[in-house]
Amino acid sequence: MPSTIDLTPAQQRSRDLEARIATDPHQFRVLTGDRPTGALHLGHYFGTLANRVRLQRRGVPLLVVIADYQVLTDRDTAAHLDDHVLGLIADHLAAGLDPRSATMFTHSAVAALNQLLLPFLSLISLPELQRNPTVKDEIAHSGRTAVSGLMFTYPAHQAADILFCKANLVPVGQDQLPHLELTRTIARRFNDRYAPLLPEPDALLSAAPLLLGTDGTKMSKSRGNAITLRATADETARLLRGAKTDSQRRITYQPETRPEVASLLRLASLCTGTDPHVLAEQIGDGGARELKRLTTEAVNEHLGPLRAARATYAADPAGLRQVLTEGNQRANEIAETTLEEIRAAMGTSYRPRT
Amino acid sequence: MPSTIDLTPAQQRSRDLEARIATDPHQFRVLTGDRPTGALHLGHYFGTLANRVRLQRRGVPLLVVIADYQVLTDRDTAAHLDDHVLGLIADHLAAGLDPRSATMFTHSAVAALNQLLLPFLSLISLPELQRNPTVKDEIAHSGRTAVSGLMFTYPAHQAADILFCKANLVPVGQDQLPHLELTRTIARRFNDRYAPLLPEPDALLSAAPLLLGTDGTKMSKSRGNAITLRATADETARLLRGAKTDSQRRITYQPETRPEVASLLRLASLCTGTDPHVLAEQIGDGGARELKRLTTEAVNEHLGPLRAARATYAADPAGLRQVLTEGNQRANEIAETTLEEIRAAMGTSYRPRT
Repeated sequence: MPSTIDLTPAQQRSRDLEARIATDPHQFRVLTGDRPTGALHLGHYFGTLANRVRLQRRGVPLLVVIADYQVLTDRDTAAHLDDHVLGLIADHLAAGLDPRSATMFTHSAVAALNQLLLPFLSLISLPELQRNPTVKDEIAHSGRTAVSGLMFTYPAHQAADILFCKANLVPVGQDQLPHLELTRTIARRFNDRYAPLLPEPDALLSAAPLLLGTDGTKMSKSRGNAITLRATADETARLLRGAKTDSQRRITYQPETRPEVASLLRLASLCTGTDPHVLAEQIGDGGARELKRLTTEAVNEHLGPLRAARATYAADPAGLRQVLTEGNQRANEIAETTLEEIRAAMGTSYRPRT
Repeated sequence: MPSTIDLTPAQQRSRDLEARIATDPHQFRVLTGDRPTGALHLGHYFGTLANRVRLQRRGVPLLVVIADYQVLTDRDTAAHLDDHVLGLIADHLAAGLDPRSATMFTHSAVAALNQLLLPFLSLISLPELQRNPTVKDEIAHSGRTAVSGLMFTYPAHQAADILFCKANLVPVGQDQLPHLELTRTIARRFNDRYAPLLPEPDALLSAAPLLLGTDGTKMSKSRGNAITLRATADETARLLRGAKTDSQRRITYQPETRPEVASLLRLASLCTGTDPHVLAEQIGDGGARELKRLTTEAVNEHLGPLRAARATYAADPAGLRQVLTEGNQRANEIAETTLEEIRAAMGTSYRPRT
């Protein structure tokens, strides 16, 4: 862990927040979520999913949005949405999320949340949308000739996700900081202009470990280089056997010069709790073959209980739908309460005067 | 009236539609509306309001959106919204709109309509939003240094207004044709991609008479040059006495060379049903003073019953709120039905499979 002096202000702030979470979790409400574009993989698990479960176990109230409309930002149709949405829920339950205290819901089911997009769009300017560096990057990487209106405005929709439930804490990666800044801007402007209703949420920077895909590039659902949570032990073994490494027989943990080997060591370390340098020493001259065997064993052992639980959940789609129905209902209650407050603050209630 | 050969295709189409309305009004559903930014004036009355009442009397089902969020597209706060919204309802009822068969509602009250903005934004591209000539014009005329996200996306929100109730007929001026074209594009793409649910609405071009304000420029709520529907007879006389004319004593109807005089003659003509050339003949050498006297008398006589009715409605704000409450309720029922269909078509219902 870097010394305090090396931390960016955002990292320092996140460290302070972690300390406050430890002492008083109930002062926080976390909003987090995913686009239902496919099965979650080990990168998601160690990057975000495990962190959600950790926060919940600490007692922090949690809402998880399944951003089904946002699937359409960079693809034309939302095929298999139903499977992906239920799969996401199964992943979360299997990872240990308790649906009685965490609220999982879909965008498409919560109209009062979506309505907030309208007043929020009135609070930000076209240049503010245009200069968002993450959206610029995503547009550049989408490979589409024309960006959709939905992609262009999605940071404002994300503000609606966070503010509809008055979340004050949002676990994010570095690339999401511009979005959270826009959410803070929207909340501040709303509060200044109408009434002090909305929190200015804090970013909780997650120290997501860098896990490469089996081809040595970023692990990604769409690249086919990912080990999914629901993969079987045999599939895991096969995928890791084919993982890219290098030609040096002796295994060492050198992230800068041997990124693929380091990524496998990190994965084994996350699963076993043993330092990657120690694991490298253990393997020594065993080479890539021994590295992969050890990593496969570590992953399959660590994920065994989760995978068993996931299979049970996945075998009961009616149960998964029920979790979603209840989450959507709670999210609607929260959203309608907030929308009523926002209508009153904006003078759009048109109620009889008393 | 121009001969058929002089009509633009859009005008020809509107003429054909009028013929179909006359023979079978129930095949149509009209969506129309206003931003609640102030009192309606004579330009609105002869341009749109009277046309709405005419369509309703013909038996065409009518929905009137009061676009309260869209007030924020070009101003920072929505002051006096409550007064403006109730005032709009009073104007419509006084003009003869029957709230039992016409549905008047506010954007802010119909979350399921607003939600449609999200899938609709996914169906159009940033360049399509950017090149809309009317939005470009409005941005240029707004005098704001930075356009809001709400102004930039409002044609997509307008598509939601029209399509949530499956309106197939939209009374518009020439400048609104690009918006309607975008709505047609969204409907077509939705139907192609998901399921054939949405009509491609037709424009009903209204031949709005050109009425100038008392200063000789376009009549506008914000320029203080408008005669409002609710003005008293005395206020009307005072405003028209101060109206700009020209220095020629003899009154003639020459719209090209004497626009201010022609506008007053047109106004008197609309109120009396007498041709403006005939009115000019009658006034002859009476000059501007007689022109104004005659116009004032015509306006006050024509609007007398409407103004009396309006005063009665305005004296009962609880009654106006009740009209809005019932309209909002009907609009919500329609919007929720459409949204359910759209969810099913897009695969976002997540219902148990049968």
